[in-house]
Amino acid sequence: MIVIVTGMPGSGKSRIVREFSEHGVPHVSMGDIVREETLKRGLELTKENVAKVSIRLRQELGQNAVAKLTVERVKELLKKSSVVVIDGVRSLDEVGTFRSAFPGERIIIVAVHTPPHMRFSRLKARGRHDDPKSWEDFEERDWKELKFGIGSVIAMADYMLVNDCSRAEYNRKVRELVKKLLTGIK
Amino acid sequence: MIVIVTGMPGSGKSRIVREFSEHGVPHVSMGDIVREETLKRGLELTKENVAKVSIRLRQELGQNAVAKLTVERVKELLKKSSVVVIDGVRSLDEVGTFRSAFPGERIIIVAVHTPPHMRFSRLKARGRHDDPKSWEDFEERDWKELKFGIGSVIAMADYMLVNDCSRAEYNRKVRELVKKLLTGIK
Repeated sequence: MIVIVTGMPGSGKSRIVREFSEHGVPHVSMGDIVREETLKRGLELTKENVAKVSIRLRQELGQNAVAKLTVERVKELLKKSSVVVIDGVRSLDEVGTFRSAFPGERIIIVAVHTPPHMRFSRLKARGRHDDPKSWEDFEERDWKELKFGIGSVIAMADYMLVNDCSRAEYNRKVRELVKKLLTGIK
Repeated sequence: MIVIVTGMPGSGKSRIVREFSEHGVPHVSMGDIVREETLKRGLELTKENVAKVSIRLRQELGQNAVAKLTVERVKELLKKSSVVVIDGVRSLDEVGTFRSAFPGERIIIVAVHTPPHMRFSRLKARGRHDDPKSWEDFEERDWKELKFGIGSVIAMADYMLVNDCSRAEYNRKVRELVKKLLTGIK
């Protein structure tokens, strides 16, 4: 089984990935794949270099280049684990790449939704160097994701978690869903 | 306050509109607006005519033509009611049209999410003449909505209801949300 975890920036995706990981389920981050490719090519990890490598990958491997690299990684992981999590999917086109690469495999989309104003305050509070300082930054970052078509992936989710509650309550929802998905599989 | 109700076909939007209506809140259906325009122009209500009128409206009023006609209708309704519901929004561009037409007004997006396989069985069971008979029909109809950018509207919702439960449970969720939204407003 392949579990695609999706959601807007700051929605709480990583909590889901971590829960799977605590159950021994490996994951592939599509963002990490581009960052690793950047390092492999002897470039420093700056925003500009990562963007440059993204474009170059597309020139070399075609549209959905990152999804294609992800397929290779997932193939390796499926040899050792019956479940693999993918995070960082941004379009239904990428989902289609996975569906055709793994025709026999069950592929499910898990989305997490957090209202925009809550994502904004949480990201601001987190304050990672690339987190938005203003509402304009926040909207710009959202827009980047939406442009790729992440909204369509969210709209077609098989499971939708709503993270508009306390952290404890969200943790409970995540634990419950991951348990349900892994029951009878591992 | 303007409440934009959104969701994929068969997700359960109309249940929310009806709940508002039972509280005396009027609504504008963007789909009805095009159908009314079709009749006004002396044309029969066929799929082809409605599509033709949609295109003609855009030629006459520019992109977001239907949203612009909706604005006029909402303006009228806001004279009599402090809350108006809009359904049938398909893109963030249309949401933007409403935001700039009503700068002082609170505008919120309420989305309902139902997993695709559940929407398919419910639509098939409903069997309205335009409901999908096969999974291919269903995907085609979904794709039409997604192409407009409805996924981005869903991803930016202020409130998200998940309709993956029993009808009674969903009714309870809808009643609770509508009550919460109307408290202190009417």
